[in-house]
Order: sequence, then structure tokens, then C-alpha cells
Amino acid sequence: MAHKRNRRKIFKKGLPPESLVYTGHREDTPANVVSVSYTEAAFEEIQGYVAPRLEERKGVLWTDVRGLTDTKLIEKVGMDHGIHALALEDVLDTQQRAKLEEFDNGLFFIVHNLKIDCVALELHSEQIALFAGKNFLVSFQEDPDDTFAVVRKRVGDGIGRLRRKGSDYLAYAIIDLVVDSYYSVLDDLEAQELELENDLHQNGAAHTTKARMFALKRTANEFRHRLLPLREAVTRLHRTESDLIDDSNRLYFRDLVDHVAQILDGIDNQREMLANLEALYQAEAANRLNNVMRLLTVISTIFIPLTFIVGIYGMNFDYMPELRWHYGYFIVLGVMFCLMIGMLIYFRRKRWI
Amino acid sequence: MAHKRNRRKIFKKGLPPESLVYTGHREDTPANVVSVSYTEAAFEEIQGYVAPRLEERKGVLWTDVRGLTDTKLIEKVGMDHGIHALALEDVLDTQQRAKLEEFDNGLFFIVHNLKIDCVALELHSEQIALFAGKNFLVSFQEDPDDTFAVVRKRVGDGIGRLRRKGSDYLAYAIIDLVVDSYYSVLDDLEAQELELENDLHQNGAAHTTKARMFALKRTANEFRHRLLPLREAVTRLHRTESDLIDDSNRLYFRDLVDHVAQILDGIDNQREMLANLEALYQAEAANRLNNVMRLLTVISTIFIPLTFIVGIYGMNFDYMPELRWHYGYFIVLGVMFCLMIGMLIYFRRKRWI
Amino acid sequence: MAHKRNRRKIFKKGLPPESLVYTGHREDTPANVVSVSYTEAAFEEIQGYVAPRLEERKGVLWTDVRGLTDTKLIEKVGMDHGIHALALEDVLDTQQRAKLEEFDNGLFFIVHNLKIDCVALELHSEQIALFAGKNFLVSFQEDPDDTFAVVRKRVGDGIGRLRRKGSDYLAYAIIDLVVDSYYSVLDDLEAQELELENDLHQNGAAHTTKARMFALKRTANEFRHRLLPLREAVTRLHRTESDLIDDSNRLYFRDLVDHVAQILDGIDNQREMLANLEALYQAEAANRLNNVMRLLTVISTIFIPLTFIVGIYGMNFDYMPELRWHYGYFIVLGVMFCLMIGMLIYFRRKRWI
Amino acid sequence: MAHKRNRRKIFKKGLPPESLVYTGHREDTPANVVSVSYTEAAFEEIQGYVAPRLEERKGVLWTDVRGLTDTKLIEKVGMDHGIHALALEDVLDTQQRAKLEEFDNGLFFIVHNLKIDCVALELHSEQIALFAGKNFLVSFQEDPDDTFAVVRKRVGDGIGRLRRKGSDYLAYAIIDLVVDSYYSVLDDLEAQELELENDLHQNGAAHTTKARMFALKRTANEFRHRLLPLREAVTRLHRTESDLIDDSNRLYFRDLVDHVAQILDGIDNQREMLANLEALYQAEAANRLNNVMRLLTVISTIFIPLTFIVGIYGMNFDYMPELRWHYGYFIVLGVMFCLMIGMLIYFRRKRWI
Amino acid sequence: MAHKRNRRKIFKKGLPPESLVYTGHREDTPANVVSVSYTEAAFEEIQGYVAPRLEERKGVLWTDVRGLTDTKLIEKVGMDHGIHALALEDVLDTQQRAKLEEFDNGLFFIVHNLKIDCVALELHSEQIALFAGKNFLVSFQEDPDDTFAVVRKRVGDGIGRLRRKGSDYLAYAIIDLVVDSYYSVLDDLEAQELELENDLHQNGAAHTTKARMFALKRTANEFRHRLLPLREAVTRLHRTESDLIDDSNRLYFRDLVDHVAQILDGIDNQREMLANLEALYQAEAANRLNNVMRLLTVISTIFIPLTFIVGIYGMNFDYMPELRWHYGYFIVLGVMFCLMIGMLIYFRRKRWI
Repeated sequence: MAHKRNRRKIFKKGLPPESLVYTGHREDTPANVVSVSYTEAAFEEIQGYVAPRLEERKGVLWTDVRGLTDTKLIEKVGMDHGIHALALEDVLDTQQRAKLEEFDNGLFFIVHNLKIDCVALELHSEQIALFAGKNFLVSFQEDPDDTFAVVRKRVGDGIGRLRRKGSDYLAYAIIDLVVDSYYSVLDDLEAQELELENDLHQNGAAHTTKARMFALKRTANEFRHRLLPLREAVTRLHRTESDLIDDSNRLYFRDLVDHVAQILDGIDNQREMLANLEALYQAEAANRLNNVMRLLTVISTIFIPLTFIVGIYGMNFDYMPELRWHYGYFIVLGVMFCLMIGMLIYFRRKRWI
Repeated sequence: MAHKRNRRKIFKKGLPPESLVYTGHREDTPANVVSVSYTEAAFEEIQGYVAPRLEERKGVLWTDVRGLTDTKLIEKVGMDHGIHALALEDVLDTQQRAKLEEFDNGLFFIVHNLKIDCVALELHSEQIALFAGKNFLVSFQEDPDDTFAVVRKRVGDGIGRLRRKGSDYLAYAIIDLVVDSYYSVLDDLEAQELELENDLHQNGAAHTTKARMFALKRTANEFRHRLLPLREAVTRLHRTESDLIDDSNRLYFRDLVDHVAQILDGIDNQREMLANLEALYQAEAANRLNNVMRLLTVISTIFIPLTFIVGIYGMNFDYMPELRWHYGYFIVLGVMFCLMIGMLIYFRRKRWI
Repeated sequence: MAHKRNRRKIFKKGLPPESLVYTGHREDTPANVVSVSYTEAAFEEIQGYVAPRLEERKGVLWTDVRGLTDTKLIEKVGMDHGIHALALEDVLDTQQRAKLEEFDNGLFFIVHNLKIDCVALELHSEQIALFAGKNFLVSFQEDPDDTFAVVRKRVGDGIGRLRRKGSDYLAYAIIDLVVDSYYSVLDDLEAQELELENDLHQNGAAHTTKARMFALKRTANEFRHRLLPLREAVTRLHRTESDLIDDSNRLYFRDLVDHVAQILDGIDNQREMLANLEALYQAEAANRLNNVMRLLTVISTIFIPLTFIVGIYGMNFDYMPELRWHYGYFIVLGVMFCLMIGMLIYFRRKRWI
Repeated sequence: MAHKRNRRKIFKKGLPPESLVYTGHREDTPANVVSVSYTEAAFEEIQGYVAPRLEERKGVLWTDVRGLTDTKLIEKVGMDHGIHALALEDVLDTQQRAKLEEFDNGLFFIVHNLKIDCVALELHSEQIALFAGKNFLVSFQEDPDDTFAVVRKRVGDGIGRLRRKGSDYLAYAIIDLVVDSYYSVLDDLEAQELELENDLHQNGAAHTTKARMFALKRTANEFRHRLLPLREAVTRLHRTESDLIDDSNRLYFRDLVDHVAQILDGIDNQREMLANLEALYQAEAANRLNNVMRLLTVISTIFIPLTFIVGIYGMNFDYMPELRWHYGYFIVLGVMFCLMIGMLIYFRRKRWI
Repeated sequence: MAHKRNRRKIFKKGLPPESLVYTGHREDTPANVVSVSYTEAAFEEIQGYVAPRLEERKGVLWTDVRGLTDTKLIEKVGMDHGIHALALEDVLDTQQRAKLEEFDNGLFFIVHNLKIDCVALELHSEQIALFAGKNFLVSFQEDPDDTFAVVRKRVGDGIGRLRRKGSDYLAYAIIDLVVDSYYSVLDDLEAQELELENDLHQNGAAHTTKARMFALKRTANEFRHRLLPLREAVTRLHRTESDLIDDSNRLYFRDLVDHVAQILDGIDNQREMLANLEALYQAEAANRLNNVMRLLTVISTIFIPLTFIVGIYGMNFDYMPELRWHYGYFIVLGVMFCLMIGMLIYFRRKRWI
């Protein structure tokens, strides 16, 4: 994180507010554009960028830009679709929070495609920016992989409502796809948490358990910090009075709000379980210390007095009558044996052994 | 939990948003439908599904679907009653939060029937979905057991207001039945908590107590996470301006809001008591460690110096005058005895023994 | 608590929502009714229930029902005064939270008379329900003792404004009496807290202190859980637009809001002090462990090396030159004495002794 | 605190709501009144109470009552100025929270003059009540000392805007004086906190540090509990629509809101620092225990095995060949010396010594 | 901090509310003024203060005052631009929180330029006050260094929109510059946090780590306390209905709100990571204590019983048959060796060694 932010600091300090600088860390990715244009009847897919003629157009034109390194291209795409300079700046600054911004000619939405690395327990984020205008949608992805292939296929095959609806429903379909992937992240977190819990029950408060527990907590926190602004953004999308959203589609956006709330609920539950787990870990560690101390105390309490006794009869005084008794040695052994048995019974009663 | 969610991920990823897939874990349950139709005067109960003729109908038609595996049937029921595809999807996705959604032709309500397993301290949840239209109500239950028999009997016998009121009051009666069962869950939690507390006072910070305490905390958290969205849903039901709710029935929904608030209050109180219990457990464990350490210190502090003294007279120096004294041995024994008594008095004063 | 709730579960499960069942634990209490009727000029007090003729009445009729076991009587009182069935149900269910409910013909208010048992540190609660109509007030008390004698006397003697005002002011006077008693509860909690604090300073982290501390925390939490809904209810009473509240009396209800806020403030302060006390207790316990360990370490560190030295000269080697020296014994004693002094100085410097 | 509250309980229980009883603890203070009357041109100061003729008056009449024991006088002052009985009651009950109450004929404001006792770390509070009417202001102070001398002098000397403005600005000047004194309290808290922190760094987790830390925390909490209602009161004063506040003076009340917010911010910061300090204290104490245990372990681990070795050669077996070796003693000494050195190196590597 | 506040207390106590006193700690700084005046076509920069003729002016006049010690000058600047006395007082009181205040003739904004000292982990703050009127802007900086050189250069070179826009956009550019610098502070905090984390993994719970951790926590808290009022101020700036803000510029202020929210999000995330780190530190310290205790217990448990055995054969009884056996010594050695091996295996199984 620190690395990426530093880039922003270095590149942007002192530049005027709307300068276009890519602040991400995927610099060697070539930009890749797919244009899809469809009406209820027709469908066309073109590799590469096609300048739109928005005025005379019917149906929806979806321009999908993958990779953000070619700032020239992005500036041109922005200009052609009338995207405000501040929005374009946000497209390139990949440290943005999820948000909705309304412009006169379109809605600008930022969301992140999240994946969890279950080994290092890190959250990988790809920023996705959407600009939805009257009859067009532009999507900007940070990574070159074709995340939206599923949606494009659905448009192409005419499955579901996509072909019959406008650019707002297309935006919904894309955001829904991203939000659906969050369920996987939540599942992975839950699976990790359960594994940790089993680990704790089997191995006690081991060192590796602790490291994973804290890493998991950190990841869960980061996930939640991604979701909080998203909830706000999606709620505002549902409630916006912009006429770019068709009233018949509001139900779908309400469903989106619901999904995000459900995931947030899941992550909050997860965080409580992790807090529970941490308390359990601490109790386990304290318990372990208790056990260690108990063993030490049992051993010491039994043998220290005995050692004192044998020490007495190791003294070299000229006159020590017991030493002369014929069975003195066995009497002392017997006394010590009884003492030991007595203490063992005492500790057993106290449930220490 | 992880198991169920994974199902959703596996089945639904890439499908269009409104696909009907059952995501629960009760796959081998056959669907079971009971249709009840009543006016103030008449009452009829039919096993099996009867397609409704909603337009020409008087009184209320209640279709109760038990078991969600037959997606074909559910789709047909949905179609016949004009239930929106997004609502039907939610019926089948049994990971939903409690919620109210208003559609033009009806109110869609999701609530969960909760039971607590007092041995494993787990919360069992059965999702219940209601769709209340002008003169009909459709209820979907995840489990095949006849949860609503009591309500059906009351309708049949004409007890209370049910026969005189519309489908909104029927929905109220069903939700009230479910919410009433939450009192049992709360009671069980309280009983478990009291048992734990007694346990802690009797057995101290034992291992099993700890495990149950954390399990109880987790269950209480989960219960609360079920109630929070329910409170919101019920409050919105009370305040909705939909004309499907008769004004004379608003008092009943207010009463429902009140009950949920009371249960939430109870569970919050419960959680504070559990936090209290956890602090008590920790204090108990720390106390135990203290006791162990105190015993160790008492034993060591008494015998280590004494062992040193006997060690002195075990030395083999040629010239050690005390060794030659006739009563040297007894003098040393006496001195050690006095030392021991002195230390015992000291520890008694410090209340260590 | 668990006991009482279970009663509700057992008695009410499956009954229609508005059934009248007394859920409290004071079953053998006979119901007791006092009717007071007054105008500015006249005052009449009758033992026993008098059916009101509300229409033709002037002045205020106050019916005070003490003891809730006679459900028949309560149903009759409710019917005569037009109290809604849901409100009557709440009168009998003594697990209610404080609340205000507005009906067309009156305001229904629930509040609890609280007393603290300073020995067991438990909160005793008596539920009080008021139904204030146009020119009448019905009060239901759970206990048979005459809590409102003071108010009745003030009405009878014509002290203060009571006789000149309507039923809303009478309701205010009763609620104010109850809220005033909360100051005593707060005082008792404060006194207990101070006592505990003194205890902690004098006896350190003793066992009894801990038990009382946790009991006090629990009681403070419960008290707060009683106050939170009361604040809401009283605030709504102050702000209600019902024409049953005379505008000239709003100042008094504002004063009530103020008192409840003040008590809540006091209890919040109290809770922070208790949290503080708990932290102090823990610090004290940790400190105690520290002291024990320090003593153990001092004793061990001084005597273990010395014991080693005397052990050396207890060995039986044929050739150990020191043993033959004439003053060997005294030299060794001297060396050990110096070592001991050195270590004592070291520990004194470290402030361990 | 408990002491003062008890007085309220004892004196007021059962009295009608508006009874005038002084509940503070400064009983032997004689009441002391100063009347100041001014217009832009004239200024007059009279010792003692002067009954106002409010109707025919121009300019502002400020009646400053110091000491609250003479309830007769206070009742007369209240009657003369038209102060509502509930407000008068609050003047005398010195346990009030800060608040603003609007009456038809004036604004009633309660604030507290706070001082900190830096030795006992206690907060001393003097309740100040203001009643500001159209052309008069009455101030009630609990203490007899002349807190407002500064303001009266400013009025007399005609410094600042006071003479040109009305009674609302005078109220502002008084409240501002009180709020300004809160900065001193905050400064004192900060100074104490810094001192504690230095203490902790120098003396480690000493006993006195702990006691002061908890006392400071308690005082900071109490201070915050005083400020929270004050913020609310001052904000309402700024926003009130009462025509007693001249619009040109709203800026000054906004400034007051700002000051209170700034102090609250400071105290919140302070509380976080104290929480930080507490965590530091605990870490320090844990660290100390660690050091003690480390020393014990080092000493034990080095000498216990050595003592075992010398024990071996202290055995009295007839046939122990090593005992007969000429250099046996020195070999054993050498071996033990090497062992000791080895362990010291080991502990040094582990940074234990 | 305490030092600075004390100054306020000493200087201002008893003065009328609007007195001009500089409360900062940079007393020997001479005031330094730069006047910049520009329209879209022209640009002029003058060193020193130029009294404005606001009425007849076109374009924007930006007066930048650096250093606040010359209160006379500041009073004159304030008078010339019509800045309200309360605002001027705030300019000089450098303990202000960030805020926006709207006056009839301009908007008054306070923000702080923050820098972090990465060695001492302290936050350095320079207060910046802006007063933006119709066609002028006055900026007051506490420090003499030329913080706004970048903006002035951009105006001079005509880069970006600055020359085409009014004083509101200039204010935006200045605030944006300050807010941008907060990213550096956040980066530095993150870098420190990562360093600490590495430290903790490498060196365990060392003493220096702890000190830095608490210092970092304190700094993060202070940073957050700076941001919270700023968020409020910036949000109000975005939403103000003042006609001093041109509607076309609202997008920019929205962007500012966004940036502050992003930084706050970052700092909240940071604080959670620090809390995580603290928990990790505690777990590490507890683990260390566990290890120490385990070693002690292993050593004691092995050698204390063995020492007892050798003690037995060091006794001087006349009749101890084993002592006479020829191989007695070797048998005892063998038994002790087996015992030791057995215990080592036991501890290895328990994973203690």
C-alpha cells in the first residue's frame, strides 16, 4: 500500500488538480479495447476502439477499456464520451474508494473487483470505473484479463433482459457480477476462520496460528473498508433521481443494495467471530502458562522439602543420634515416601494433576 | 455456513441475476402444498396446490408451500400469483436477511424460524418467505414440518379476529408466531448463561466452561445478527404506506415492532452479561495462577534457605567448630524450626496461606 | 429472569395474540382497587371498583388497580374505559419495556418502579401501566403496596396544582414520583461503588471484592437497560401532538425528560467508573502477582548460588586443598556473606525489596 | 457525589414537583445580591436587591444573586422577574446538567464553573443559572465569590460592545467567561497527563503512577460528562428562534458553539492519550514481570544443574573412582565452569542478559 | 501542546471576547505579505501589502500574509477587507479546529498544513486561514515559508483553470494543495507502521518497538482529530448555498470532500492496523513469558528430582546397604540417566523443547 501511495505523492504533488497520471502498479500492461454495440435486435462486437457517434445512435454502445497505462487513449475515450476531467482523473488513480458521482451527461461509478490470496491472506483489488450515459457505457478495468466476458456473452446470446434494457441495466449487470464475486471472498474468509478454529482446538495456542489469525483480522478489516463506501454508493444509485435510471430498473438496484448489506452483515459477523477467536487464543495461551506453572509448582512442592530432609542427614555433626539407628535410613525413606504420597493426594484433590 | 455459501458460489456464478436455484441444504425434501381459502363465513382446506383465480375471488386464499426443492412448482406458484422474479430468487436463496420488499401487487417479507440446539449451542434457522397480495397470501417454508398448523387451526376454528380480517392480518399472525418463538431462544440462552455462571462459581475457570462460554457468545452474536435486519423490516412494515395494510391493523404491526425491540433488548442485555462472564472467567483464571504462584513461593521461600543451612553443615572442612559441639545438631534443628515458624507467621499476615 | 420468561413461553405459545394471561410471579396477590374522583372543588375516595360513566362526568376519575391476578376484573376495567386489547395484554405481561402508545381515546404508558437490594445487588422491578383518557386515568400496579399514597394525599389535600389540572397532569405526577425514586437507586449504586473502591484500596484484589464488582456491573447494566426505553417514551410523551396533553402542561413533561436524561447521565458516569474500577482491580491483581514473583526471585537468586557453593565443599574428593585450610570454613562463610550483601544491595537499587 | 444526591433524596421525596429546596452543600453561605443597571449612556451598581419595574424600564437590569441558601429571597426574585417555578427549582437543585430552556418571557440557561484540584485530581463545580428576559438578566451563583467581577467591570468601563447590546449579549459574555475557564481545566489535565507520562518513563509501572492515572481518567470522564450537555445547550442557544436573541448576536453564539466543540475535541484527545497511557502502563508492568521471570530463570537454569553435579560427588558410595583421582576436584570445577560459561553465552545470544 | 494552551489562558483570560492576541509559538517571525492580482488576461505580483480598492476592482486580488506576529498589520488587513472581528481573532488563535464560517461578505475557512516528524513521531501543524470574498482572497499562514508558491506559479503561468475562475476556485486550489499534503502524512504513517511490524516479527516484543508503537498510535489519533472537523468543514463548503461559490465549481468541492473521506478512511484503516499490532505485541510478550517459564520448568522438573536422589546417597546413616554395593554408584548414575531421558522424551512430546 505504502508503495502505491508514494507514487501518487511523487507524481502528482504540485500538479494542477485534474492532471491525468496513472498511479497503479501495472505499468507494463498494454491497453486493450473491446467495443460492443447492441439493440434488442442486433449485436456487434469489435476489437479495438471505435469513436462513437452518440447523437445519431440507437441501442447501447459499450466500450470496455482494459489496462490504464495508455493515458492518451483514455483521454481520447473520455473526450469522445464527454467524461468530466475529474472523473477521468479518478479512473487513473487506482486508490479510489467505491463511489457514485452524478454528472449532467452520465453516472460515474467506481467499484473494485476483489480476490483473496488464501496463502498470504492478502486482498487483491482491481479498480473498475463505469461511466453510463444515455445510450452508452464506458468501463475501465485496471487489469488486462477479460472480467466481463460472461456479461458480454449474455448480451451476445440474448439471455435474460440485457438486450431489451438500456445502459443502466448493463451497468447493473456489471456491478452485480462484481458484487457476486464478493461472496467468494466472504466464503474464503469463513473457510480460513473455521480452519483456524480447528487449528486452535487441536494445536493450542501455536505460533503459526497467531500469525494467521492476525493476518486474517487485517484482511477482514480491509474487506470491510472496501464495502462501507460501496454500500453508500449503491444506496445512492438506488435512490438517485437522475433520469438516466429507468424506473422499471430500480428494483434491480434495490436488490444490489440488499446484496451489499448481506455481505456487510456477513463480514461483521466474521469480525465478531475473529474477535471471539482472539479471546479464545488468549485464554488458551493463559491456560498453557497455567499448566506449565502448575507442573513446576507440583514438582517443586514435592521435592524441595524432601531434598531438605535428605540434606539434614547429610550434615556432618559428631552427635546425630538418628544416624546411628540401625533402621534410621529406612525410616527416613519411609517418612519421605509418605510425605510424597500425601502431597500427591493433595494435588489430585485440587485437580492439579 | 461456509458449506452453504459455497453452493451459492458454485451454482450461481455467471448466471443471469434472476435465475432460480435452490441454495439450501435440504435437497431430498419433497415439496408439500396446503391451500386454505376462507371468508368470514366459510373455510376450506385442500391438500395440494390449487391454481388461484385471483380476480373473481372473495375472502383470503392462503397457499402454504413447504420444501423448496421443486423449483418448477415454485416458479408456477410465483407466476400464478404475480410474484416478481427477484422475489422468487430470494425465496430459494436461503441465506437471505430478514427484509420487507414492496411490490406493486404485494408485500414480500422474509423472516427466519430459529431454534437453538442447547447441546452443541448452535442456532438452526429455517427461512420463511411470505408474499401478501390483495386477497391472497403465499408462504414458503424451507422445512417440511407444519410450522403454521396452529394458525391454520385458529382460522379453521374461527378463534380470534383471523376470519374477519384480510391477508395482512394473516401475515401478521404468521410473523407473530415466528417472533414469539424467539422468546424461547432467548430463554434458552439465558438458561445456558445462568448454568455457565454457576459452573464458573463452582468449578472455577475450567476448560469445558471456557469452550461453552465462547460457543454461547457466538450463538448470541448470531441471534443478534438475525434480529437487527428483522427490526428494520418490521418497522418498515409498520410504517409502510402501502394500501395492502388496512389502517385498523397498524396497531398490531406496532405491537410486533415492540416485541422485536424487547427481544433485541434482551439479547443485548445477554451479551453484556456474557462479556461480564468472560471478564469473570479471566479474573478467575488469573486468580488461579496467583494461587499456584503463591504456593510455589511459600514452599520455595521456606525451604530454600533451610536447605542452604543444612548444606553448610554438610561441608567437609577439617575445622568446623560447630560440628564438634555436642548439641550442635539440635541447635541447628531448633534455629531452622524457628525460621520456619517465623516465615509461616509472615505469610499468614500477608494472607498468603 | 429465565423463570419468568419461561412462564410466558409456556402459557402463551399458540394462543392468539391478544389473550390475557398474567405472566408475573406474584400469583397469590389479591387485586385491590381504589377509585378517586375529583374536580377543583370536590374530592371523593372509594375503596373498590366503581364502573365509570365517562360521558356525563366532570373532573378526573382515577382508578388505581393493585395486583394483576384477577384477569376478569382487569378485563372489565379495560372494557369500561375503552382500553384496547393489545394494551390490556401489555398490562398483564410484566416483562414489557417502558413505552408510550397512543390510542384514539387515550395514552398508554408503561414505566417500572425500581428498587435495589443492596445485599444481593439485585434490581427489583414493579411494572406500572397508566391509561390516561379525556377525564380519567387508570393505573395498574403489579404489587399490592400503596405506592401512590403520596400522590393521592396531595390530591386530597389540594396541595400543588393537582386539583386544578386534568388527567394528563395526574399521569405526570405519578411518573414523576416513579422517576424520583430512580435517584435513590442511583445513589445506592454510587454508594456501593465507593464502598468497593475503598475495599480495593484497603484489601487489594480480594475475592469478595471481585464478586461484588461484577454483580454491581450487572445491576448497573440492567438499570441502564430500563432507562433507555424510558427516555424514548418520555421524550415522545413530551413531543406528542395528542390533544389529551394540555399545552400548558408540556413544560412539566419537558422537566421529566430532563430528569431521565440526568439519571442516564449519572448511570453512564457510574458505568465508566465501574470500568475504571475493573481496570484498577486487574492492575492490582497483576501487581500482586508481580510482588509474589519478586519475592520468589529474590529468595531464589540469593540462596541458589549459595547452596551451590556449600554443595561444592560437601563433595568427597580425596584431594580438595581448601578443606584442609584451617580457616577455610570461615573464609567460605565470609565469601557467601559478602555475596548475599551484594545481591541485597542490587535488589534494593532495583527497588525490588 | 453520593453525599449530595442523598440530600436530594431525603429532602425532596414525596414533595410536589416544584418545591423549592436547596440541595447543595454550601449551607452556611449568606446570600449576596448586586444589581447593575445600564444603558449605552448610563451605568449604576447597587449592592443588595432592588425590585425591578420591568415594564417601564430601558436598558438592561442585571441582578446577580450569589449564594442559594436564602430560598425566600430567591422565590421573591423569581416572582418579580416572572421566572417559572420549574426553573426556580432547577436553580436550587445544584445537580443539574447544563441546559437551555425556553420560556415565553425568557431563556433559562444552566452552566457550571469548573475548577480542577490538581493534588486530589478532583473537579470542583459551581452551578450558575441565568434567566435572560427582554431587558433584564438574573444570574444565580452557588458560591459567594464574585466570579463575574470582570464582566461587571467591562460594563462599567464601557469596554467592548457590552453597553451597546442587550441582555442576550450580556448572557453571552457571562457564558463565554465560564467556557474560557474550561481551557484552564483542559490545560491542567494535559499537564497532569504529561507529568504522568514522564513518571512512567522514569519510574516504570510504580504504584503511585497507577493511582494518579486512574484518578486522572475519572476526572477526564467527569469533565466530558459536564461538556456533552453543554454542547447541546449552546447549540440550541445558537439555533433558537426566540426573538430574545438579536440576529446580530448570533455570530457570537456560533463562536461559543465552536469553543465548546474545541474543548470537547481536546478532552476526547486527552481521553485517547490516557487510554494509550493505560496500555503503556500495562505493557510496562508486563515487561517488568518478564524481567523478573527472566532473572529467576537465568539463575535457576545455571545453578540447578551445577548443584546436581556437586550433589553427585557428595554421595557416600564406597566405590566412586572419580573421588580417588588426584585432580578429580579440579576437573569437576573446570567442567562446571565451562558449563556456566556456555549457558551465559546462550542467554546472551537470546538477549536475556 | 500544554505550553501553547497555557499562553492562551494567560494572555486572554478576562479580555473581551474579540481581542486580538497571537497565541502561537513563532514569535520572532516577521510578517511577510505578497499581493497577487490577476484577471484572465493580466497577472501582477507585488511584494508587500497593498490596500485593496474592492469596489472598483475586476479579477481577483490575493493577499497572502505569512507570519502572524504583527497584529497591527493583521488588523489593518482585516479592516480593509471587511473581515469580522471574531474571524480575525480566530486567525491569531492557532489552536483552532478546521472550520467554515459564512459571513455576509465572505467565507472564512481554517485548515492546517500538517507535516510528520518521522524520528520523534510528532505531528507539526501550521494553521492556515482563508477569507474569500467576492473578488478577493486573503490567506493567513502561521509560518514564514512560502507554502503556496506552487499555486502562485500556476496562476502566473496560466496553467489549468485558475486564471479563468474566481476567488472561490483559488480557495479550492489552496485547500486542495493542503489536503494533498495529507497523503504524504498518511504514507509516512503507513511506512512507520510497516517498519514496526517487521521489527516485531524480527526482534519480538522489544522495548523500543513498544515506545514507537505507542508514539505512532498517538500521532495517528492526533491526525484523525485534525481530519474530523475538516471533513465537516469541507462538506459544508460543498453544500453551502452562499452565492460566493459558483455553481460550476461545486464539482471541485465535491472532489475535495471525496479526498478528505479517502484520507479519513486510510487513517481509520491505519488505526485498526495499529490496534492489531498492539494485540500482536501483547501476544508476542505473553509468548515470550511462556517460553521463559517453559525453560525454567523443564530445567527444574529434570534436575530437582535428580538432586533429591543424589541427596539421599549423601546421607551419613551408619547402615545404608546400597552404599556398600560395588556398583551402587554406577547403578544410581544409570537410573538417573534413564530418568532424565524419560523426562526429555515427555517434554518433547508436549512440544516444550
